[in-house]
Amino acid sequence: MEYKVKRLDMYTGYPLVIVLNKKDADLMDVYSLDRIRVKKGKKQIIATLDTTNSEKLVKRGEIGIFDEGFKKLKVKMGSKVHIYLEKKPTSVSHIKKKLMGKKLSNKEIYEIIKDISNGLLNEIEISYFVAGSYINKLSFKETVALTKAMINTGEIIKFNKKIVVDKHCIGGVAGNRTTPIVVAIMAAAGITMPKTSSRSITSAAGTADTVEVLCNVDLSIKQMKKIVNKTHGCLAWGGALNLAPSDDKIIRVEHPLSMDPTGQLIASILAKKRSVSATHVLIDIPIGKGAKIEKMKDAIHLKKKFIEVSRKIGLRVKVFITDGLQPIGKGIGPMLEARELIHVLKNSSTENYHPVLKRKCLHIAGDLFELIKKTKKGKGYAYAKQILESGKAYKKFKEIIKAQGGKVPNPEKMKLAKFSITFNAQNSGKIKHIDNKTINRMARIAGAPYDKEAGIYFYAHKNDIVKRGDKLFTLYSDNKSRLNYAKKINWKQGLEIKPNGKKKKK
Amino acid sequence: MEYKVKRLDMYTGYPLVIVLNKKDADLMDVYSLDRIRVKKGKKQIIATLDTTNSEKLVKRGEIGIFDEGFKKLKVKMGSKVHIYLEKKPTSVSHIKKKLMGKKLSNKEIYEIIKDISNGLLNEIEISYFVAGSYINKLSFKETVALTKAMINTGEIIKFNKKIVVDKHCIGGVAGNRTTPIVVAIMAAAGITMPKTSSRSITSAAGTADTVEVLCNVDLSIKQMKKIVNKTHGCLAWGGALNLAPSDDKIIRVEHPLSMDPTGQLIASILAKKRSVSATHVLIDIPIGKGAKIEKMKDAIHLKKKFIEVSRKIGLRVKVFITDGLQPIGKGIGPMLEARELIHVLKNSSTENYHPVLKRKCLHIAGDLFELIKKTKKGKGYAYAKQILESGKAYKKFKEIIKAQGGKVPNPEKMKLAKFSITFNAQNSGKIKHIDNKTINRMARIAGAPYDKEAGIYFYAHKNDIVKRGDKLFTLYSDNKSRLNYAKKINWKQGLEIKPNGKKKKK
Repeated sequence: MEYKVKRLDMYTGYPLVIVLNKKDADLMDVYSLDRIRVKKGKKQIIATLDTTNSEKLVKRGEIGIFDEGFKKLKVKMGSKVHIYLEKKPTSVSHIKKKLMGKKLSNKEIYEIIKDISNGLLNEIEISYFVAGSYINKLSFKETVALTKAMINTGEIIKFNKKIVVDKHCIGGVAGNRTTPIVVAIMAAAGITMPKTSSRSITSAAGTADTVEVLCNVDLSIKQMKKIVNKTHGCLAWGGALNLAPSDDKIIRVEHPLSMDPTGQLIASILAKKRSVSATHVLIDIPIGKGAKIEKMKDAIHLKKKFIEVSRKIGLRVKVFITDGLQPIGKGIGPMLEARELIHVLKNSSTENYHPVLKRKCLHIAGDLFELIKKTKKGKGYAYAKQILESGKAYKKFKEIIKAQGGKVPNPEKMKLAKFSITFNAQNSGKIKHIDNKTINRMARIAGAPYDKEAGIYFYAHKNDIVKRGDKLFTLYSDNKSRLNYAKKINWKQGLEIKPNGKKKKK
Repeated sequence: MEYKVKRLDMYTGYPLVIVLNKKDADLMDVYSLDRIRVKKGKKQIIATLDTTNSEKLVKRGEIGIFDEGFKKLKVKMGSKVHIYLEKKPTSVSHIKKKLMGKKLSNKEIYEIIKDISNGLLNEIEISYFVAGSYINKLSFKETVALTKAMINTGEIIKFNKKIVVDKHCIGGVAGNRTTPIVVAIMAAAGITMPKTSSRSITSAAGTADTVEVLCNVDLSIKQMKKIVNKTHGCLAWGGALNLAPSDDKIIRVEHPLSMDPTGQLIASILAKKRSVSATHVLIDIPIGKGAKIEKMKDAIHLKKKFIEVSRKIGLRVKVFITDGLQPIGKGIGPMLEARELIHVLKNSSTENYHPVLKRKCLHIAGDLFELIKKTKKGKGYAYAKQILESGKAYKKFKEIIKAQGGKVPNPEKMKLAKFSITFNAQNSGKIKHIDNKTINRMARIAGAPYDKEAGIYFYAHKNDIVKRGDKLFTLYSDNKSRLNYAKKINWKQGLEIKPNGKKKKK
């Protein structure tokens, strides 16, 4: 049938959407959520159908097309297009098969992931795939197939190197900004580390948000390769590189029920590492209340799976389980984190950074050195320390930031947010625990990560002894009403101070 | 936070949608698909969040509101509104519980259905509920709870009668237009039958589409009660009456994977019967290739479930399994079906209607009479026949149509579609099977049910002996290009003629 194009000034990101008047849809025997092929000359799109009863929105004989589809088809308002009902892709029946508790073959998983990547499956269908993977679990074989499918349906960035290293942290810990320091150490040692990072999802800053304070992170694959070939490292935002593109679409439908089937989590992480041709990967699983993984048992289970699946896709991994019971750095939020990591790299005096941050970076880099056999077992940490403390890592860092179009500022002169408020201890004692969820939430409401200067600066950490009235932390924001809103959060629930064991007065 | 309203000229039917700029959403720590409370003075809505990166669509500081929400809030372009993140309803955790294979309590099922009815759960969440019900099955107790929840979250139309009858056909059989005739017979006998029917979903006409040829079917509850109190019967469209409103929303997300968990199907049907206060219900399950239920085994299983659940909600049912291997009437499509049923009611000469249609109506009405003990066992059919053939049913039918603002026309003078094409037998033999799916599809493409005159008229039926060249059926349409498109369907696959057992020529 032929329809007249009406542009609807809407867009979804995913999937492509067209709208028909309900009466036309009935006549064509097509339904909401059906896949429709829209053709204009040689150009064509496959879009998800929505229907409307409103003649005002889409009249009979018209087809409403959302922005992205409109651009892809290169049509004008009033153009004539032809539309056809597209058969359901066979991947829909594979999804149903998984829902029914059957195992999927490699080919079936590949088809599902390919169709998700190409926008051929709608969100409801993807939800059913997640539900099937969640209830009936993904077997080891299916998880491997899923990982491979995610790799092969996206871009793969190749480097002409025998060894390419990478790292990943499962997340949830505020201020855990080890990546830029580790990349600088590894690259300074001549090891290729083409790091792609995400922006924050639920935390106050992702690595990409933090590095963006210093330089451009939105690199093309071509730029990324050029920078890595020159400096051995880079600090790119992974979001626009089309690595494992099905992943974002799956994560979106997992959000409403806060589901994260283990198989999906592993496939998602490992696929992105393999997509940058990594050969050796270090994975950090912080555990503790407020972190993503709360129990040791779950962390150990996850660790085992990571190792098994990695082996099957030709990746050497080391997984370590770390303390997620408090933020890592003193600074939380892009600017504060950037400042602190420069201090670590510059070997500034120790009051400028949290020693745990430096130690953790050296551990990660050290383990990577051991994993790739650059050093013997037990010698990696010292080797990493030597590179960092000699100033080589800082020199390399400046080189990378420069290659990405930025310049490393003097951390002393970095401007902080206009408004701030400092919180003090209301009783004396030992800090027992600083809840990452609470801290992240507070920093986000203050404006992080979008407002780079917003965030939290800690004066005390876990296990520190504080006196009543001591400064605990300062909250920064560029916006007074945000600051007021953020300060109302019940942070005391997330920062426990255990009285010094003194007896109560009688 | 305060935002400036921008009206987006879009609507979804369900759920309410608002759009924020991605940066504002990040700052507020809210995500796509989160529930947001939008307040303007005392008015408020809870809507599903979508986000956009397009400043053109929704700038920072703006909130895009889809049509329905815009109207509900009674705001203007540029109005200031406040928005708040709404906690996930507890029903979300019940859905997750079902996904994890646990049984739900009555209260939990009620909360899910209530939240679906009120638009508090998005389509992805509803999909997860369907997936959980599909994979982990609904237990008998859960099915009963679901049915009760569907009843209690919608309107219940009460009649001051001890006995209220109803009927339901599982569907899929073309031309199965028994309902208006059965209502006329029952009402003529003084039995209350407040019939609500659906429009077609996949067939050439639903009862509501057919009755609409003769009168208004879009009745309010008040109108419906008035008509039933006066005539004992009515033939209303159920769609606008808000009976079991969760049902449509569940059906929408079942469509992409063509899922129809038995528990949902039973709850959906029985809830709608109980919502019109029915006490005695007859359920018709046609079986055969091309019908909704294809296998006897499945039909028997379904029958058993219907009876068990009905007992728990205080409904007396009789279920019968009928032949779904061919269309029931001669006419397929609203006008052709209306004409044929008037002929049955008027006791016209038998060439005007298919005898199977009349027989089936008398069976249903007869069984209902026996079920309510109006007649003894085995006497219902004769009693129904007497009412029909005496002309009492026709008189009652005219009364009902008049009460609904219409008039029963002379069937001889009913105008058919402008264009038609007749198909002939291409070989001699016995008609083995007429596939309902093919027939429905052909009629729909010709324009049914929206174009009332479009449809198919059959000259021969299953088991009839035809000669090569004999007329099989005529296809009607008001639109020549539709007719041409419809005639291209490979109908021979759906209408098998078995040669007369003659030996092939040597």
